[in-house]
Amino acid sequence: MSFREQIERIVNEVPGCVSCTLMGFDGIAVDTVDRSETVDGVNISDATIEYANLVRQMRTAAEGLASGAIEEVCVRSEKLSTVLRPINEEYLVAASFSSDGLLGKGRYLLRVIAPRLGEEL
Amino acid sequence: MSFREQIERIVNEVPGCVSCTLMGFDGIAVDTVDRSETVDGVNISDATIEYANLVRQMRTAAEGLASGAIEEVCVRSEKLSTVLRPINEEYLVAASFSSDGLLGKGRYLLRVIAPRLGEEL
Repeated sequence: MSFREQIERIVNEVPGCVSCTLMGFDGIAVDTVDRSETVDGVNISDATIEYANLVRQMRTAAEGLASGAIEEVCVRSEKLSTVLRPINEEYLVAASFSSDGLLGKGRYLLRVIAPRLGEEL
Repeated sequence: MSFREQIERIVNEVPGCVSCTLMGFDGIAVDTVDRSETVDGVNISDATIEYANLVRQMRTAAEGLASGAIEEVCVRSEKLSTVLRPINEEYLVAASFSSDGLLGKGRYLLRVIAPRLGEEL
């Protein structure tokens, strides 16, 4: 399965998942599958770029703390929830959910596809 | 129940929860209940302070994105997982877990106690 098909799977199979993107830690998307560009008025791409930058900072913090690699960061806000999962040093996968989205299922599937995306990259 | 008793509840009732702290966004703890100062060699207090600072930045980002208030941030790393929940403009509550900790139960109880802590502050 190509990485396009992997990220499509998240959006298609998880209720409330509005977008899934494979992105560099520099904020530049490699590929994105989305149902909408916004959720409840929030620009999903802008949010993902902001959060990816903060995950990058968390990785630096985690190195200083010797707490091991960051495996997953989940940010829930009133209108949008985002799950981000580093794939390797350069890339992460991020899925965005409306406030009623099934985050648990999304987190599970991201955990499944992240290593497969790593193989494709 | 005092806030001390509320945060004690998290550490006592959630398997793998090693620390729970009520903290200002400036990184200064109001009160902390912990089973240990470290987990798998990671200093829990240092990690919480680092993550609280990043949650503060996420709040600023969320304001710019108009995505509503940040309700919860969950950071999973190899050796330590941390759930942080803003209580109000100034304070947050953070619980730290060993890698085999029951994060789901921890997140649930934090959601329950956060508004009660807000009433005490």
